[in-house]
Amino acid sequence: MGREFLDLVDISEAHRIIRNLFKEIYHPPPIEKVNLENAYGRVLAQNVKTPIDLPPFNRASRDGYALKAEDTFHASEDNPKTLKCIEVIEAGAIPQKRIKRGCCSRISTGAPIPEGADAIVMVEYAEEENDNIIIYKSAYPGQHIAQRGLDIPKNEIIAWKNSILSPEKIGAISAAGISKVPVIAKPKIGILSTGNELIEPSNDWTPGKIFDSNSHSIAAAVKKCGCEPKILGIVKDDYTKLHKAIQEGILECDILITSGGTSAGAGDMLREVIEDIGKVMIHGISIKPGKPTLIGEVKGKLVFGLPGFPVSALIIFDVLLRPYLMELSGKPPIEHRRVELPLARRLHSSKGRIHYALVKVKNGRAYPILKDSGAITSLADADGYIKIPKNVEILEEGSRVKVSPLSPI
Amino acid sequence: MGREFLDLVDISEAHRIIRNLFKEIYHPPPIEKVNLENAYGRVLAQNVKTPIDLPPFNRASRDGYALKAEDTFHASEDNPKTLKCIEVIEAGAIPQKRIKRGCCSRISTGAPIPEGADAIVMVEYAEEENDNIIIYKSAYPGQHIAQRGLDIPKNEIIAWKNSILSPEKIGAISAAGISKVPVIAKPKIGILSTGNELIEPSNDWTPGKIFDSNSHSIAAAVKKCGCEPKILGIVKDDYTKLHKAIQEGILECDILITSGGTSAGAGDMLREVIEDIGKVMIHGISIKPGKPTLIGEVKGKLVFGLPGFPVSALIIFDVLLRPYLMELSGKPPIEHRRVELPLARRLHSSKGRIHYALVKVKNGRAYPILKDSGAITSLADADGYIKIPKNVEILEEGSRVKVSPLSPI
Repeated sequence: MGREFLDLVDISEAHRIIRNLFKEIYHPPPIEKVNLENAYGRVLAQNVKTPIDLPPFNRASRDGYALKAEDTFHASEDNPKTLKCIEVIEAGAIPQKRIKRGCCSRISTGAPIPEGADAIVMVEYAEEENDNIIIYKSAYPGQHIAQRGLDIPKNEIIAWKNSILSPEKIGAISAAGISKVPVIAKPKIGILSTGNELIEPSNDWTPGKIFDSNSHSIAAAVKKCGCEPKILGIVKDDYTKLHKAIQEGILECDILITSGGTSAGAGDMLREVIEDIGKVMIHGISIKPGKPTLIGEVKGKLVFGLPGFPVSALIIFDVLLRPYLMELSGKPPIEHRRVELPLARRLHSSKGRIHYALVKVKNGRAYPILKDSGAITSLADADGYIKIPKNVEILEEGSRVKVSPLSPI
Repeated sequence: MGREFLDLVDISEAHRIIRNLFKEIYHPPPIEKVNLENAYGRVLAQNVKTPIDLPPFNRASRDGYALKAEDTFHASEDNPKTLKCIEVIEAGAIPQKRIKRGCCSRISTGAPIPEGADAIVMVEYAEEENDNIIIYKSAYPGQHIAQRGLDIPKNEIIAWKNSILSPEKIGAISAAGISKVPVIAKPKIGILSTGNELIEPSNDWTPGKIFDSNSHSIAAAVKKCGCEPKILGIVKDDYTKLHKAIQEGILECDILITSGGTSAGAGDMLREVIEDIGKVMIHGISIKPGKPTLIGEVKGKLVFGLPGFPVSALIIFDVLLRPYLMELSGKPPIEHRRVELPLARRLHSSKGRIHYALVKVKNGRAYPILKDSGAITSLADADGYIKIPKNVEILEEGSRVKVSPLSPI
């Protein structure tokens, strides 16, 4: 009953194969243009240069009076200088009059400096008297003027390729008058759940059935990687239906993830389908959970067959897919601060396979979660998982283990 | 020219006032229901209980044969037991036949256990011979059966209020057949930029104008807080226009943020408008940048008037708004791991005001960024900022400073 696995590969060989497939198939990553409104958190795909000088003109950086600095030399409280005010320049306006010796214009912060002026004296150090302005403090040339291009000159790079578009970078880009940016396109990941027993969570429960949880949990995990999930629904364990679903799904996605239907049991259809329309690269990895994992290629795109048990599916996603999907979307690697803690209880492992075991962290100790991998609540309770080498059968209470955290977002 | 500030308040008093206003106005936070597809990263507003037992029935956790354990006692390779196979039960099917002594049913992982059976023997330890099944290993009662409700019984809490909806929690919720969840509604934050000199980044540049960058940078900072920004556009420094924009904006938002038009200069309209249609709580804080910051209330909602300079606007947002917006959206506080580093260069500060100064971190030292606060590129370059107490005028090279990081997302 059922077919055998291909040769089991070990986890490092699986990583090598997957890494190469990603490099071969998904390089270079496609680029899309998005409006600034939708750019936050995205990854810049090209350097962005400013097409204008910033600031774009000599600009007042204080409210005050634009004048010739030499007209204020030696001015003080005791020795004020009097200038004639010839214009009022608001921000956004264009100065109409040139400043000559003995003259000044009232100017607002952000307004262009009139020709002839080379300094601003702040309002605090001046007084108006009809059309005359009395200046109580001397200024140096350039005072309170932001020179054109001083912040950054035209054609300089204002945001670098591969940087994440933060509020600050988005501010700089919009200041340069750019309203669309090239970002790495979010890879589209199709998600299929297979199994005759599955029904949608929005349906009523009927005997013998269980609600499909993998579609939604994997879709969220895909978002966590900076990719765009597309839930393709539930497929029965039926060759024709699965064949059709995969052929259609692969067309609208960059990568297809299925769960269920991979074990060497009664319902094993996935491998047959992939073999018929593509190629199976891996079927069987010497890890627990996740031994029946399948990796194949169809029409030049990758298909990942994850185990059906919710816990197994999410752990295998985290181990085998997350790092590559994050790289593909340009999301910087999660700082996987693994924490070394003592094990709170003895734990048995499976000899000959690497074993990923969920743990809960409490009072500085790692408690193994011993529910079976069909138990969805064990994941919701877990703080992380530990990796037990394949030659270890028993981890004693108190052994130091490294916990990989399961961060919520 | 222009009006004076209200009494300057210090930063701790400003925080006290803002904290109280948020508590008064936005408590309890409104709740909305979202589909699971849109639930990732949101904050659960109520406990979610499972309306069904999980698993919902006694379920096979391996492919094998459902039987009475006692029929297998003492079975071994040398002493196999023979049972009659009376049914094949696939996952999703409902068993039709009761298991009596001497009988078994072939069963798939996930299928319901037939009545009368109390154990599963895995396929690996059995052989088919016509309608007979030869069993080579004895089983104990309960073996490979996931009991109904064992994972979590009906009406128990499956995800807790205030938790972030991670892939794991979304998996647990969908397994319980729940397709919509109550989450904390994202606060809607309206964003206005004021100033005659501003034009949209999507327009062509014209002399005397600058591109509005605050709308986009603040919108991204609002998203970073888990809130929903609504860019309301640019308003001229004109009483009637600002009055209209604020009255309309406040209707469709929970909080309104403006930038520009708050200083005691020529274009100071915001305070007049807020005084006429609401109340000004704070105008002037003894910090640098951000002294002209205004906080008011209009129609029971908060209005924040940030300074117009891009750097000042974002720093003040980070200091005065971010913590409260994150609390409002239910987003857990950023682990603000402030790093203590030596200052790479002497830095002058403003006596009498707390000074927030941008720094770039290089080779383990904090370099002050000395551009003026109109320079948008200084923010794009900065790694964080330091807070200089108001009684400090000079920080010497080598002094230890605590850098608050500006994380990109």
